[in-house]
Amino acid sequence: MAFGEFDLIQTYFTQRWHTRDDAEVGIGDDGAILTPAEGSQLIVATDTMVAGVHFDAQTPARAIGHKVAAVNLSDLAAMGAEPAWLSLALTLPQLDHDWLTHFSQGLREICEYYNCQLIGGDTTQGPLTVTVTAQGFVPQGQALRRDGAKPGDWIYVSGTLGDAGLALAAQQHRAHISDNHYHRVLERLYFPSPRVALGQSLREIASSAIDISDGLAADLGHILKASQVGARIDVDELPMSLALTESLTADEAIDYALSSGDDYELCFTVPESRRGVFDTLVARHSAKPTCIGRVTNEAGRLKLERDGETWQAPSTRLGYEHFS
Amino acid sequence: MAFGEFDLIQTYFTQRWHTRDDAEVGIGDDGAILTPAEGSQLIVATDTMVAGVHFDAQTPARAIGHKVAAVNLSDLAAMGAEPAWLSLALTLPQLDHDWLTHFSQGLREICEYYNCQLIGGDTTQGPLTVTVTAQGFVPQGQALRRDGAKPGDWIYVSGTLGDAGLALAAQQHRAHISDNHYHRVLERLYFPSPRVALGQSLREIASSAIDISDGLAADLGHILKASQVGARIDVDELPMSLALTESLTADEAIDYALSSGDDYELCFTVPESRRGVFDTLVARHSAKPTCIGRVTNEAGRLKLERDGETWQAPSTRLGYEHFS
Repeated sequence: MAFGEFDLIQTYFTQRWHTRDDAEVGIGDDGAILTPAEGSQLIVATDTMVAGVHFDAQTPARAIGHKVAAVNLSDLAAMGAEPAWLSLALTLPQLDHDWLTHFSQGLREICEYYNCQLIGGDTTQGPLTVTVTAQGFVPQGQALRRDGAKPGDWIYVSGTLGDAGLALAAQQHRAHISDNHYHRVLERLYFPSPRVALGQSLREIASSAIDISDGLAADLGHILKASQVGARIDVDELPMSLALTESLTADEAIDYALSSGDDYELCFTVPESRRGVFDTLVARHSAKPTCIGRVTNEAGRLKLERDGETWQAPSTRLGYEHFS
Repeated sequence: MAFGEFDLIQTYFTQRWHTRDDAEVGIGDDGAILTPAEGSQLIVATDTMVAGVHFDAQTPARAIGHKVAAVNLSDLAAMGAEPAWLSLALTLPQLDHDWLTHFSQGLREICEYYNCQLIGGDTTQGPLTVTVTAQGFVPQGQALRRDGAKPGDWIYVSGTLGDAGLALAAQQHRAHISDNHYHRVLERLYFPSPRVALGQSLREIASSAIDISDGLAADLGHILKASQVGARIDVDELPMSLALTESLTADEAIDYALSSGDDYELCFTVPESRRGVFDTLVARHSAKPTCIGRVTNEAGRLKLERDGETWQAPSTRLGYEHFS
């Protein structure tokens, strides 16, 4: 008897995985049977990673397992949601036990860390592609959206920007950085930390939020468009790691912080009236947010300033378009 | 400016699509914001279709759009759920406007027919792969599972079996059938009808249920395994279309009905005590179920009988293993 789909699921995706009481049935029936938290709304996000596009042959399988969950949990974080359940669609060229061992380990670890249960999915044969749909909860009416920013709100980002982009550039020999820096930024590219706790604590505080997957300029642009507002950013305030500032010129570093993707930090806006509560609250968070600018009433316009002057990017890429 | 991911979604996946009141936000934010029906449990299913594996170059794009939703709605039907929301992960080799027009049409039509809203997803570039995650509701505690069959329960299947398999065989020149029959079975292969209404009416009546995606023998086998029972099937009772009986020998037709996949009928068990209610109820359904046998206490054993004798398949394939 060949090693079939059922053996594969049994071996790699059910034993010793984290379970939750609200999943009456997870893997093993036609669908999962789940009990949503009372008084809550459900947040659902889907992200796909394709071999040769979102990762390459040298990407460790454990990183792929981690990241495909992390990018979805980052979407939930940007909505202020508490993660609960993941579905996995895994398309594999062939049965590679070593790859499956490490992939499932990466996915299992992040599920456990964030109290998520893998509740189902599909395994198929074909070109390596991984899709996760993640679900979580917010109390009724408290989800963070893109369309609530108002002129005068303060703009924040969590953590540091540009690290994952620098890792990719170094890997592709487009940037030269020290081994020590490379090690740190590669960890950010491979094992991003979704800002789950921060997102939840922004409920009833932030007027809008988004996660930075395509680059700050592009993703803040989505907030501006949805909210019909503009923004003024002081590029000197952009939070950067030593890896960025020590490896690049000042202008290059700003460009990375503005336009390279895959950092999975949160960008959000806070009204003046909520700023005191916010300052008290964020002191607890490790990915301490930095104020980088302010929302304006110039709909759709993103003004980049440095020392009070307009800052011009050396080669502004301004985000990643998938079918350009 | 190139035609980007946002234009693609805007053009093909938002305009004139069916919406539901319980989706506060669908496409267009980091995640959808949904309000689950009160007192209900959520059913979640995921299925992937890969080019060259689940469909080929001659499969119309509209059929792919229909079918990737249909196979998921079939899973929901097998759980007794009412469909509500779909997420789509679409990986495309290139921007093909003609393909996207027809694919989105097929998906949009079935969403509208079953009162489903497309609430999000991801579009990426890569080898053609389509994954849908479907969600629906059942009243608390009424989901149909695989593990409730008891010895003495009657075994039913809806509709007719083997048609989709015959279409595939004819397409691949493994079977010769008339043009008229081919037209009908090809419709079943390309545009399967998930038994959504039947599944919902089986709540509190069926003791177990599954949808037939891998073939009756394989899928009934999952019920037997989960319920720790056996089954005796009278192969003369298997419901078949004229296309099957007129194109194949009797033994071949039985083999198709037992072991070819992709029919998306329901197989379910009904306790003796619920049979009267069931008979009254199913009279309404177009895919009128046929009683094909009975559950036994011989755990895991599937006995196939004809005229009271054991029936031996000419070449029993007994289901489809994805990594054999």
